[in-house]
Parts: sequence; C-alpha cells; structure tokens
Amino acid sequence: MSVNPLRIGLAGLGTVGAGVIKLLDANASLVSRRAGRPIVVSAVSARDRQRQRDIDLRRFQWVDDATALAGRDDVDVVVELIGGADGPALTLARATLAAGKPFVTANKAMLAHHGLALAEAAEANATPLKFEAAVAGGIPVIKGLREGAAANELSRVYGILNGTCNYILTRMEKEGLEFADVLADAQRLGFAESDPSFDIDGIDAAHKLSILASLAFGSRLDFAHVETGGIRDIRLADLQQAAALGFKVRLVGLAAVEAGTLLQRVHPCLVPLAHPLAAVEGPLNAVVAEGNFVGRLLFQGRGAGEGPTASAVVADLIDVARGESGPAFAMPVAALAPLPPAPPEGRFGRTYLRLTVLDRPGVLADLTAALRDAGVSIESLIQPAAKADGTALVVMVTHECADQAIRAALAAMAALDSVAGAPLFMPILAAEG
Amino acid sequence: MSVNPLRIGLAGLGTVGAGVIKLLDANASLVSRRAGRPIVVSAVSARDRQRQRDIDLRRFQWVDDATALAGRDDVDVVVELIGGADGPALTLARATLAAGKPFVTANKAMLAHHGLALAEAAEANATPLKFEAAVAGGIPVIKGLREGAAANELSRVYGILNGTCNYILTRMEKEGLEFADVLADAQRLGFAESDPSFDIDGIDAAHKLSILASLAFGSRLDFAHVETGGIRDIRLADLQQAAALGFKVRLVGLAAVEAGTLLQRVHPCLVPLAHPLAAVEGPLNAVVAEGNFVGRLLFQGRGAGEGPTASAVVADLIDVARGESGPAFAMPVAALAPLPPAPPEGRFGRTYLRLTVLDRPGVLADLTAALRDAGVSIESLIQPAAKADGTALVVMVTHECADQAIRAALAAMAALDSVAGAPLFMPILAAEG
Repeated sequence: MSVNPLRIGLAGLGTVGAGVIKLLDANASLVSRRAGRPIVVSAVSARDRQRQRDIDLRRFQWVDDATALAGRDDVDVVVELIGGADGPALTLARATLAAGKPFVTANKAMLAHHGLALAEAAEANATPLKFEAAVAGGIPVIKGLREGAAANELSRVYGILNGTCNYILTRMEKEGLEFADVLADAQRLGFAESDPSFDIDGIDAAHKLSILASLAFGSRLDFAHVETGGIRDIRLADLQQAAALGFKVRLVGLAAVEAGTLLQRVHPCLVPLAHPLAAVEGPLNAVVAEGNFVGRLLFQGRGAGEGPTASAVVADLIDVARGESGPAFAMPVAALAPLPPAPPEGRFGRTYLRLTVLDRPGVLADLTAALRDAGVSIESLIQPAAKADGTALVVMVTHECADQAIRAALAAMAALDSVAGAPLFMPILAAEG
Repeated sequence: MSVNPLRIGLAGLGTVGAGVIKLLDANASLVSRRAGRPIVVSAVSARDRQRQRDIDLRRFQWVDDATALAGRDDVDVVVELIGGADGPALTLARATLAAGKPFVTANKAMLAHHGLALAEAAEANATPLKFEAAVAGGIPVIKGLREGAAANELSRVYGILNGTCNYILTRMEKEGLEFADVLADAQRLGFAESDPSFDIDGIDAAHKLSILASLAFGSRLDFAHVETGGIRDIRLADLQQAAALGFKVRLVGLAAVEAGTLLQRVHPCLVPLAHPLAAVEGPLNAVVAEGNFVGRLLFQGRGAGEGPTASAVVADLIDVARGESGPAFAMPVAALAPLPPAPPEGRFGRTYLRLTVLDRPGVLADLTAALRDAGVSIESLIQPAAKADGTALVVMVTHECADQAIRAALAAMAALDSVAGAPLFMPILAAEG
C-alpha cells in the first residue's frame, strides 16, 4: 500500500470548502486508515483571499486562478466547490481532466449541463470524475445507485432532493404559516438564498434528478427534459386540505422509464402518510429507488450543509486514494441509452386540484361540467367556508385519469368567470410501487 | 476495458443461489454494461444434485465437492451461499482466498466467527473478500459504511437487522396476536425457520451487528461480546402498553463507541413513534449510522429473500469485475482498533419494565420500595386491570438511570413473593442522537 499522501487542490472556500478542510483536520487519522494513505490539502484557490474565514489558510499554497490548480505538481486531485454551471468551475473541470487528474465536485448545475461531456473527458484521460456531494448532500446515494443497486434494472427513482423546499413546507405545515412568511424567515436564518429561485422553483432538484436518472437507468443525462415545478404557489390551505385527506405535501423529483421513454418531473406532490417520504421533515433529503430484484430501497439523511457535504466530498477522495475508478455514470458514455423524453399522453394517476372561486351559486356545477367534459372523474370534493373577500376554495381529488385530461379540465376551469387565479394541481404519489 | 467475462463458481443452490442465477439471466445486459464485462456462472455445487429446482443447471459444470471450485481454471471468483459458521463454507473460503481468487459471501455467521482471519487471508493473497449480502439483504449498507460514510468518525450504528423478528413484532402489533401464534403462522408461511432460535433469540442480528460495528468504528470484529437478547418473552400486552406510551417495540441491534470501549447489544427496545425505525414494518430492515460530519444516515429496504440478497451478491460481483478492491473491513486487519467491550456500569437511559404480580394489596409498595432502594426513579406507572387468574401486569417507565441500578431493582423485584415470573425490561431508544 502506498504511503504517499493524496494531495488536493481545493477550489472554492465557502461553507463546503471550509467543511472539507475541517473534516480532513478533525478525522485525519481515520481518513488515512480508510484511504490507505493520508489525504492532505496542498493548494487552495478562492475569489477573495482576504475574506475572513474560520480556518487558517497559511499552511496551504494560495493560487489566484483556480485553473492553475490542475497543472500543479503538488496537486494529485482537484476538488471543485466554486459552483455555477459554467465559468471558472467548468474551465477547471476541463483542465483537470485534460491533465489526467481525478476531479471531485459538488456542482450539480455543472453536471446537469455538462455531465456527459465531462464524463467523456474523464474516460478519454482514464481518470475519475466523482460527484457524491452533488446530490442529496451527505447521503451516499450516487454510490448507492452506481454500485449498491447496480445489479438491478431500476424502474423508478424519486425523492426529496431540495432541503430548502422541504424545510419551508414542513414549517408551513407545523407552524400554520404561509409560504412567503416562512421563506422570509428562512432567508433571515440562512436556510434560503437571497435569490431563492433555484431552490423554490425546483431547478436545483431538477439538476439532481437528471444526475440520478442517468445513474439509475443507464441513460444519457438529459436535464433539458426535466419538467420542473416549484412550491411558490402552495398555500397553507393546500397543506391543511392534504392533511385532512391523509397526505403530506412534498416537492418530489421523480424519474421513471416507461415504455422505453424517460419521465423526469420535479413537482409538489401529495404523499400518503404511510409512505416513507411523508416522514422526511425539515432540511432532510431522501431518495427511493425501485429495482427488479432488490425491491424498494430508501436512503435518507442531511441533504446540505457544511458537514454532510464535506462528508460526501471526502468519501469521493477516499475512493480516489484507494484507486477506485470506473466510469462516472457507471458505464462509458457511449453505452448510456439515449432515452427519448416520455410523451405527456402517458401520464396517469390520481391528482389533487385546488381552485379559488367566487362564492356564488352555480360555480360547482360549472366546475363539475368542465371535469365531465374532459373525462375526469372526481373521488372527493371539499369546499371550505368562503372567505370574507367573497372567494372560496374548492379542493378536489380525482380518480386515476390521464394527465392530459386533467390539464384540459384545468384549462377549461381557468377560463370560467367564476374561477379566480390559476388553479393548482399536484400529482398524488401511490403508497406502493 | 476487458471483455473477458468474470466466471463464477457458485456454491449453494438454495433460495439465494437460485436468485443469483435468475438475476444474472434476467439482467445480463445491464450487469455487463455496469460491470464493464459479462458476469457468468461457470460451475456450481450443492449438496443434492437431484433436488427439484426451478432453474436449469445443465448449462453449468457440476462440482460435487464445493471446495474444488476454488481451484478450477474456469472459475475467477467464488460465491458462497452454503451458510453455516464452519464446515464446507469455511473450507471453501480458505481455499478460495489461498488460491488468490475473490470470495463473495452472504454468510454472516461465518464472518462473525472467522471474519478477521478471512480478511487477513484476503490481504495476504491480495484478493477481495466481499459480503454485502451478509447484512440487511439488499440494502447496500456494507458499502454505505465502508465507503459512503468513510470520511466520518461514527459514534453509533444501529438498526433493525432481522426481518423475521420485525415481521413477528409488527404482526403481533397490527393483528393483536401473541408471539407464539404469529411464530407458528410465520413458520407455516415460510417466513420463519422450523428451528427459529437464530432469528428470534437475536443471534442472527448479533452476527450482523458485529460486522457493522467493525466497519463503522474501524474496530476488530468482536462477536463474542455482543450482548444478545431476543423477542420470545415479548407479550401482546407489552406492545399495547408501549403503544399507549407512544412507542413501538423493535428488536434493535446497537453498537456504539463510548470512552474507548465498544458497546454491542441486540435487545428489544421501545422506539419513539417519531423515530424512523418506528416506521419500519414487516420484513423490512433498516440501519442508522451517526457520523461526526454527516449526521444521521438511514438506509432501509428488504433485509432478506431471493431477490434482495441476490441483488447484494451481484453488486459485489460487479465491484469485483470492475477491479474494485481494498481491505474487507475498510482497512487492513492490523489497523483495526482492539476496542475492549463496554463495561456494564457505563449504560444509562430510560427503561421500560413489565412485571406480572399477584393482584393483592401492598404489591406496588413493595415494587416501588425495591426501585427506590436501587436508586431508580419512575417516570410513569400503569397497572392495567387484573386478569381472571389473579395476576396483574405492572408496567413502568424509568427516568434516565444507570443500567446497573435497573438490573439491581429487577433482581430485587423478581425475588418478591408477589412477583410471578421473570420481569421484562426494554431500553428506550432516544428520539434524537
């Protein structure tokens, strides 16, 4: 066994970068025993050298231009924690792989947009590209799908992939607050970004889902076709009505192979209380994978933050130190199947609908006529008491029906004079399978 | 990438052995893409060649003596699914590793008893020893601890490691049945062995726990010091009282490092309803690991059966095919810490106590005096109505106190004339941490 240390060039010294340094300090002996050799930071790079940090950087070489890390003789592996789909992160990734050095990243946006090209570069240079920290923080779900469930044909992979959204939804639910109030508080507490769009509009979860789907199905990563919705329009009343019906509301990223096509969707969903995802609260993440031999696997843990993300980055580094290699997406890029996106006419399921209507006679007759005309059958309908402003909510759960029928019914209902604002719909996750 | 197939010698053609053959048939193309080369069964061995099986064995070489698989030129890796701590399984393991060939096994009993010696043999011959299927069936928890959580100092690892016990406990709970009735039914249905002791007395869970502990803590595997209890003495009344107090009863295997000592215990426990283990029902398994950077990780899935176990065996084979290697217990045996067993005086926690007493005045005074004398403080006490036979149950939950005090109090109470039969105690798992 080699006793040469594995020397890291670390780009990005934000929360996660600092976490990696702290972990390698705190767990140095144990990491060395598990890796077979010491793992040490050799050189670092960040935008602002002068920024106040709670780690001492004087023991590392400082590099102004992160790209230079790739070419340094004292760097065996580059860890990229800069972020951003393009720009310096992508330049550094290309330079590192071109230099034949392993590249470890937590950058889901870059992988979603350039993952296949980077994986090809890694193959061409016979060097690992690793990204355990890019999905679900500290949960080893990349390894779980790439290796742990590798013997299975997976039919679905889905989960709670964005801790900020889950934090907001569970606080709304527990504290009886509206979305905007919790978001503002989360921003104040640092649980949400000042520009929260990537999180709350589902884009971050979509990045992660596209990576999981490629690993799960051996299909070409296809971020462009992830149907993406977020949680901005969820009201407290939706959580309350869902609870009354026996559901929690969760932002679920779901990918499935159906008849040779790839469905990828991030959308708020109703999750039955008995489903393991209903118990996932606060900033936790969870991923479910369903395989033809293993059945349903669940991985759960902290999806973000300094410690969990550093844990995932260093797990990759230990793999690199031990000489673990192999293709980034479990098989060569050329072997990944180019699955076409699932056509909308294939969707089928129960759906939650919520409309705001004017509180006047005949409204329900109009709504139910629109549903009937679209071929949508209603399992239950609740009309809570009208509000002081003369509007009322109508909440419906449909029987299993085609997604397209739901959309047609929603369009017809939205056009009614008596319907105020855009209707909201949420798919209902089946309890089993 | 090599296109030579990886050729398996498969020993043992019971449920799991047949499952491995079925999986390699059903998922051949996908396994080959993920492994980088085909994985094929070359030769097989089992006790009874003539036994009726639902797989066609004529395409494989038949070997009467499993040990001979190790030396065959057409065998690159041996898969051992014979079972048993010693005997042919152990002989085959030694012969395979001595021949410098990778050895894949689901045999937790053999690993619990001989895991370190086998790991040393694997190291000496620079060949992998792999056993994902030995713990928690299809859940990739060996990989999860060995690699996924490798960057962490883990403080505790615990979980539901025996599906038979969990099946029995959850059926008792849901159907209001006594232990013996569910056991008999489980035996009839094939969910429990005709000699169920390994499962229901906690021995199987103890085998698995000793393996997890070594991986989690980088400590020498120490099955001899697992404190092992089972579920034979659990009554329906215990589940009902636990439910009234806000708990489920689960057989929990728990390992923890405390002040440089290793606690390993398999025991029925009260699990708070909010804890993820409370939601683990039927034959499912689940493992929780708590790390100093990652926080709490949960892995859940099917813990036994043809499909899940075959999934884990083939995951190991894919690792072998891809050239993944490294020490069996994440680090060389010489680097594993020889942690002494935790002394009993270190235990501390809330505890559930259940006694059967004669229904006569003064009994509670005697019991509470015994508790006071032992220094045990009671948080709550329930005495359900007496039964027709003149006995009554007394159920108590203690405040946090030393385990030794509980044991002293139990001994004193068991000696009372008014106490019938042995008292039962169950530790209460903390909701957090």
